[in-house]
Amino acid sequence: MSGNDNKCMEERIEGILTSLMDSFSEGKYIDQANSYANVDEEQILHVLEDLRLIIFQGFFSNKRFKVFTTKNNTSMLLEDILYVLARQIARVLPYEKEIFCGMTDEELQERALDLTLQFLEKLPAIRAVIETDLEAFFDGDPAAYNKDEIIYSYPGLYAIFTNRVAHELYLLGIPIIPRMMTEHAHRETGIDIHPGATIGKYFFIDHGTGIVVGETTEIGEHVKIYQGVTLGALSTRQGQALRGRKRHPTLGNYVTVYSGASILGGASVIGDGAVIGSNAFITSSVEPGARVSIQQTTHKGLPSAMA
Amino acid sequence: MSGNDNKCMEERIEGILTSLMDSFSEGKYIDQANSYANVDEEQILHVLEDLRLIIFQGFFSNKRFKVFTTKNNTSMLLEDILYVLARQIARVLPYEKEIFCGMTDEELQERALDLTLQFLEKLPAIRAVIETDLEAFFDGDPAAYNKDEIIYSYPGLYAIFTNRVAHELYLLGIPIIPRMMTEHAHRETGIDIHPGATIGKYFFIDHGTGIVVGETTEIGEHVKIYQGVTLGALSTRQGQALRGRKRHPTLGNYVTVYSGASILGGASVIGDGAVIGSNAFITSSVEPGARVSIQQTTHKGLPSAMA
Amino acid sequence: MSGNDNKCMEERIEGILTSLMDSFSEGKYIDQANSYANVDEEQILHVLEDLRLIIFQGFFSNKRFKVFTTKNNTSMLLEDILYVLARQIARVLPYEKEIFCGMTDEELQERALDLTLQFLEKLPAIRAVIETDLEAFFDGDPAAYNKDEIIYSYPGLYAIFTNRVAHELYLLGIPIIPRMMTEHAHRETGIDIHPGATIGKYFFIDHGTGIVVGETTEIGEHVKIYQGVTLGALSTRQGQALRGRKRHPTLGNYVTVYSGASILGGASVIGDGAVIGSNAFITSSVEPGARVSIQQTTHKGLPSAMA
Amino acid sequence: MSGNDNKCMEERIEGILTSLMDSFSEGKYIDQANSYANVDEEQILHVLEDLRLIIFQGFFSNKRFKVFTTKNNTSMLLEDILYVLARQIARVLPYEKEIFCGMTDEELQERALDLTLQFLEKLPAIRAVIETDLEAFFDGDPAAYNKDEIIYSYPGLYAIFTNRVAHELYLLGIPIIPRMMTEHAHRETGIDIHPGATIGKYFFIDHGTGIVVGETTEIGEHVKIYQGVTLGALSTRQGQALRGRKRHPTLGNYVTVYSGASILGGASVIGDGAVIGSNAFITSSVEPGARVSIQQTTHKGLPSAMA
Amino acid sequence: MSGNDNKCMEERIEGILTSLMDSFSEGKYIDQANSYANVDEEQILHVLEDLRLIIFQGFFSNKRFKVFTTKNNTSMLLEDILYVLARQIARVLPYEKEIFCGMTDEELQERALDLTLQFLEKLPAIRAVIETDLEAFFDGDPAAYNKDEIIYSYPGLYAIFTNRVAHELYLLGIPIIPRMMTEHAHRETGIDIHPGATIGKYFFIDHGTGIVVGETTEIGEHVKIYQGVTLGALSTRQGQALRGRKRHPTLGNYVTVYSGASILGGASVIGDGAVIGSNAFITSSVEPGARVSIQQTTHKGLPSAMA
Amino acid sequence: MSGNDNKCMEERIEGILTSLMDSFSEGKYIDQANSYANVDEEQILHVLEDLRLIIFQGFFSNKRFKVFTTKNNTSMLLEDILYVLARQIARVLPYEKEIFCGMTDEELQERALDLTLQFLEKLPAIRAVIETDLEAFFDGDPAAYNKDEIIYSYPGLYAIFTNRVAHELYLLGIPIIPRMMTEHAHRETGIDIHPGATIGKYFFIDHGTGIVVGETTEIGEHVKIYQGVTLGALSTRQGQALRGRKRHPTLGNYVTVYSGASILGGASVIGDGAVIGSNAFITSSVEPGARVSIQQTTHKGLPSAMA
Repeated sequence: MSGNDNKCMEERIEGILTSLMDSFSEGKYIDQANSYANVDEEQILHVLEDLRLIIFQGFFSNKRFKVFTTKNNTSMLLEDILYVLARQIARVLPYEKEIFCGMTDEELQERALDLTLQFLEKLPAIRAVIETDLEAFFDGDPAAYNKDEIIYSYPGLYAIFTNRVAHELYLLGIPIIPRMMTEHAHRETGIDIHPGATIGKYFFIDHGTGIVVGETTEIGEHVKIYQGVTLGALSTRQGQALRGRKRHPTLGNYVTVYSGASILGGASVIGDGAVIGSNAFITSSVEPGARVSIQQTTHKGLPSAMA
Repeated sequence: MSGNDNKCMEERIEGILTSLMDSFSEGKYIDQANSYANVDEEQILHVLEDLRLIIFQGFFSNKRFKVFTTKNNTSMLLEDILYVLARQIARVLPYEKEIFCGMTDEELQERALDLTLQFLEKLPAIRAVIETDLEAFFDGDPAAYNKDEIIYSYPGLYAIFTNRVAHELYLLGIPIIPRMMTEHAHRETGIDIHPGATIGKYFFIDHGTGIVVGETTEIGEHVKIYQGVTLGALSTRQGQALRGRKRHPTLGNYVTVYSGASILGGASVIGDGAVIGSNAFITSSVEPGARVSIQQTTHKGLPSAMA
Repeated sequence: MSGNDNKCMEERIEGILTSLMDSFSEGKYIDQANSYANVDEEQILHVLEDLRLIIFQGFFSNKRFKVFTTKNNTSMLLEDILYVLARQIARVLPYEKEIFCGMTDEELQERALDLTLQFLEKLPAIRAVIETDLEAFFDGDPAAYNKDEIIYSYPGLYAIFTNRVAHELYLLGIPIIPRMMTEHAHRETGIDIHPGATIGKYFFIDHGTGIVVGETTEIGEHVKIYQGVTLGALSTRQGQALRGRKRHPTLGNYVTVYSGASILGGASVIGDGAVIGSNAFITSSVEPGARVSIQQTTHKGLPSAMA
Repeated sequence: MSGNDNKCMEERIEGILTSLMDSFSEGKYIDQANSYANVDEEQILHVLEDLRLIIFQGFFSNKRFKVFTTKNNTSMLLEDILYVLARQIARVLPYEKEIFCGMTDEELQERALDLTLQFLEKLPAIRAVIETDLEAFFDGDPAAYNKDEIIYSYPGLYAIFTNRVAHELYLLGIPIIPRMMTEHAHRETGIDIHPGATIGKYFFIDHGTGIVVGETTEIGEHVKIYQGVTLGALSTRQGQALRGRKRHPTLGNYVTVYSGASILGGASVIGDGAVIGSNAFITSSVEPGARVSIQQTTHKGLPSAMA
Repeated sequence: MSGNDNKCMEERIEGILTSLMDSFSEGKYIDQANSYANVDEEQILHVLEDLRLIIFQGFFSNKRFKVFTTKNNTSMLLEDILYVLARQIARVLPYEKEIFCGMTDEELQERALDLTLQFLEKLPAIRAVIETDLEAFFDGDPAAYNKDEIIYSYPGLYAIFTNRVAHELYLLGIPIIPRMMTEHAHRETGIDIHPGATIGKYFFIDHGTGIVVGETTEIGEHVKIYQGVTLGALSTRQGQALRGRKRHPTLGNYVTVYSGASILGGASVIGDGAVIGSNAFITSSVEPGARVSIQQTTHKGLPSAMA
Repeated sequence: MSGNDNKCMEERIEGILTSLMDSFSEGKYIDQANSYANVDEEQILHVLEDLRLIIFQGFFSNKRFKVFTTKNNTSMLLEDILYVLARQIARVLPYEKEIFCGMTDEELQERALDLTLQFLEKLPAIRAVIETDLEAFFDGDPAAYNKDEIIYSYPGLYAIFTNRVAHELYLLGIPIIPRMMTEHAHRETGIDIHPGATIGKYFFIDHGTGIVVGETTEIGEHVKIYQGVTLGALSTRQGQALRGRKRHPTLGNYVTVYSGASILGGASVIGDGAVIGSNAFITSSVEPGARVSIQQTTHKGLPSAMA
């Protein structure tokens, strides 16, 4: 490139830079100033990885340290989580302005440590319920040759593992971080379970891609859901005005929801043992034991659109 | 292993190698020769990451260099993009044979630099429209506790950010690279928006998994779409013969399309303010303000398939 | 933090550790002891990456070694796969207890090497059929500007490449590893094709997110399927009792299945040239050449749920 | 390994752990508690690398960001140093108890930033003097084919570059960090120049291994020293009592010191233009222009030790 | 490059390969076959790094895991060493043919574990003696501003730390590994202390480059040595015939050896409190309290060689 | 930090940047413009590492690819070197202005490939002579327990390996790169052997730190040199005027040079079988079989300097 061209290029870069600097000073929400105080997703995922090592004790290798004894391995992981997660929690607590406003950095840090410890104290209980999920997966899927295959490769188990962990953080009132975890699982699996959703034991997800489970959903025990199921809100036209209100359905025990079905609205209660067929569209309650499906009117001949 | 076995193993490896070498010389399309001249996806994703750092100024940490002043940080990112992207563009330009045939390497390189600069000059405008998307996301979703949560974790925002960036490269006539970007977002989010799609301000995607938006789709302002929505082509039986023709729908302003709905065909125009219900299947135009849904004939009793 | 607080924190950590150690000794399935003997997903994905370098010879750069001659590059990749894959296979063979029970480590290792070599011997044939898939993708999609774009960015091609590789390992009776590969592709693409599925030449997947293809599915040649299609089982209530039985459909040649359609059950045979419309729900056989769709009863007015 | 052996091993590990915990609580200096507040050598070397990129502008590639314009590249490096170095300086300032005792963390941080900026303001002057060193190296060494070879590979230039940088930090009263830099150069080159040493322009070091230049050494302009030269203290029996006192020699301009020579003591002043021969052992002053060497009494016949 | 040239290049590569394959089959010692069974230096250095983290408890950050409690941090490091070092020891034990010949792999592995545990049991004692070295360094060097500076940057302390660790492995009869450790320190510091050397408490090395301490050297307490000192063998003409014999000197307590001095031969005993001057060349014993130096015959005038 | 301070800091950074930009435009040698065209040391060391894998066939693991067959491993390494080294050679050839002036980039690239191939053709011969060095090391050193220990850990072997490789590149007239290799070995080992030095078979270096071997040195077969030996030039006052002239000594066969001895000058010829004692200072020729040492006048009593 000739020196002249180079000159011209530098001028164009300079011009772009100037217009971006102008863009940064327009007061838009995305014109934020301080990237050092922000939550770091990489660290959150690191914690999630540590948690998987603890919860599925013995299934995944710890590549950073080689440790023979389970106890040492576990204590090391616990402290790693404590250190990393507490720092990230301290960064997000100020989002809860009513509670944490006016706290000094040190107070925030202590509060974050305490919350992290409270969370870690839940781990044995989380393990116990994930064991029931594993059983439900194995019993429900004839394609599963053994339980290890499920642990190593089933997206549904990864999604419910992530939800059970994130849900505890959500219950502790920690902002943003639980959602980062479940959206990570969403990216990995196509299964979008909000950390606010309450899910009972022996939960089974098959295939899973496209599943949506909303924030105020309540799910009983021994429930099965398939790919493409939505447990969602009715119209959200009121937007932020609906925040905090129950707007997603409640499912009893032993409910099955087949692929592509949608159950919408906070008033929709699906009774114990009900079965919702594929592609059904439910916006009100269903009685216990009911079997609901859309009317099938399959016919020969395609709409012209597909001819 | 005994030496004998080892010998045998080497012979088998040699046999496999020979048959593969034969396979490589059959003139198949996948028998290509020169891997050094090819586009490098890793570099493309590196550029996309840099762009996210610029567009969401201050939200994500730059891990490679620690920089206090926004201006220096931005100029550094601009140059990094310029260097990396221009090299990759120079590699793909020859795909556009009618235009770039016969250009020397140096001419290609200069053209690539110029195209990259043209692209970078669009960044302030891209930022302005993404700010409107962010507002639409926050207003539309009661589950969003604040805008940072959206920026850090919403797959829909990532998908529309990627489309807005890739669309500008598409408009500049750059082959392959825009698609690599949107397919990356597709992998991450399950949302498949072709870089050719034209999308207005205040666009809101909820959950998103399974969304498909085709190349010649046009979308107005303040449009909302939910998971599983297809804005697609009618039958593509003619295949390559359809290339370049308008074959995907047009949506007006303030249109809402609920989960699982499909709108197909280049002649389908959805009027301003129309609402398309879940799982609707639309292959012709819809009037402004219309509310369209499939007939619900839910009934008790499952098809035997699900009993 | 004061020394006192620190003391308290250490006590709490100790308490968590103790309760976790108790949790590990309850005999749950997830309380496994030896992480060193387990299959390592990272290694499996490394093998998949090597295979992509061989199969799409010349399209992706080998970043670990710079090699001019195709032959040397290929032999190096073959040996790398042989070394890494054989070690992982030796780890999973004991899952097939009836066959490998009582084998010494050395015998397992030799058997694993032999299986890996058998697999590698299939590579030229795999390449030949993937070439036909590439043609089907290009012919079927007017949005594809050239074949390179497909190789570099189409999730559907990645999914079918992974299935074709994993299917050969599945046929060799290797446990767990084939599923890890296809679930990786599932995560990347949202397309869940079980390694057991048998798929003919010239297979075309468009967009792909949400596709499910079950273990005992059989698919003919020149078949096209779109996003959200399920080729699944009917009720799996009997769970593990169904293992090994034919429970997914059979598709003839030149069949097309549009987005969102479900075809369920091992007895469902779709005849040559049949076309299944969007969102159709098929649980029995369809004659050759038939065109099947759901009855469309679109109407103005939304259900109150969406108003 | 049998379970029994494993048990035994765990007990032994436990025993080792207990004895180490006892060892940690004996109040030794090396039983320190808090590793998070300590200076991080990796960060110091990162700064040194950044400084080399600035000082030898254009000779070494910046691998983290690709930047065309010198100005942007430089500003980015400056800020990176500012961020990283200031944090490390804030960690070491408390070593200077008389000065920084009682400062809050924030005051320390501000002071550290100010010191870092003062240091950076010296960079143009440092560059100017290193240019003279480069000339001295080229003029003095017939084995140097060109100046680039010196910049890319001469250990002597690396050592003097490091000293000139570390010396400025030393003059600003920053503890520990300057020495970490020069000891790094010592490791790389075998040349041990204390950051306290004051060295004039046009300094030339040939080969360099084994050179020692003490803290209070003063060196004029156009001085040459060869491998194995010591500019050291006389007996340091008094140890810490000598701290801060002039105890190393002073060399005038145009002095040459050949390989293996030692010049010791704070009172030893070597006059302008003096030449000190190989292996000479000097403990008092030498007049300007003098030529000093040890008496050579080479003779035939080896001491029995070497026969 | 034209195809013709390319052909030619491939032929030349083929030719080089053939001649190398011939070279590999000539039965030279460097024509070894199996790289998988060999000791891995990277792992050895990893162990050395872990040991530094334990011995200087609290001075260096553990970057792989963040751990608050010293005990957990230590137990994790112990197990990491146990795992990694035992595997490497099992690889080198077969070098000691008389002892380990005929052992099965499992026996070797158990023996290696036992040896590693024996080594780890020495750590508290090693820490105690390194504390005395640290004191000697601080007391002896007026340039040391505090002990942390010594721990962070003094090459002499790194060399003696490495020797004390490697010496224990040497005493356990482990081949090759101890030497790999001390040669690593040699590379880093220019100080070459053989792992066989026996060194008393309060050992002080100043500057250190060029120091050589031979295998059968014995050194008392409170000894100081300076750069360039050799504690070596007399003529080693007999080569391997001397193996195992005492051939390096013995130094009493409170001995000082100034820079460049050589003390050679297994019969040379340096009495308590003796001081050996710079560049002295000692091949016989020296009485306690003696002060020995070479005759200085400095004169004006250089040999023509340096004129 | 307050906004005001921040402002002030930005101004200071701006000031530093401006003064550096001024510094860059003063026309100094270190004000170079284009960092992209420069030789990349990292790549050179990568080549050296590959060469070590080939030359010590089977001793070091190849971590990038796992390959069973020696032939494939070797061909892969050859091509990697060819690719990487040829690119770096093409960058340095223009330093030889008389020869390569006016060549196009393509011609330079072809020439670089040819030179790299010429170099690779020397590898079998290099291996043969390094085998003799290994024998000399083992025979000469009673501290060597076996030859593997030498290969894995002796700095002297690494230095002579590097010289033998670099010397061939030097003979091919390649600028800068050979010196980068030997200076790397110098950093690692403290042994500075210029790539121009010609060294016969069975060369043995013991300990090695501080050794200097000049560019025009010639060394026969079966020569031994110890730490601190200089084979150097006499006064280099004439500097660049001496370039290319013979200015370093010539050593015959079976010569031994003990630690610290210096042999200087191009006219100094050391006859076959001569032995040069420790610290001797030789500036003229020595007859075959002679034994030369300095007169030892050790005496009791230290110079006051050390008292």
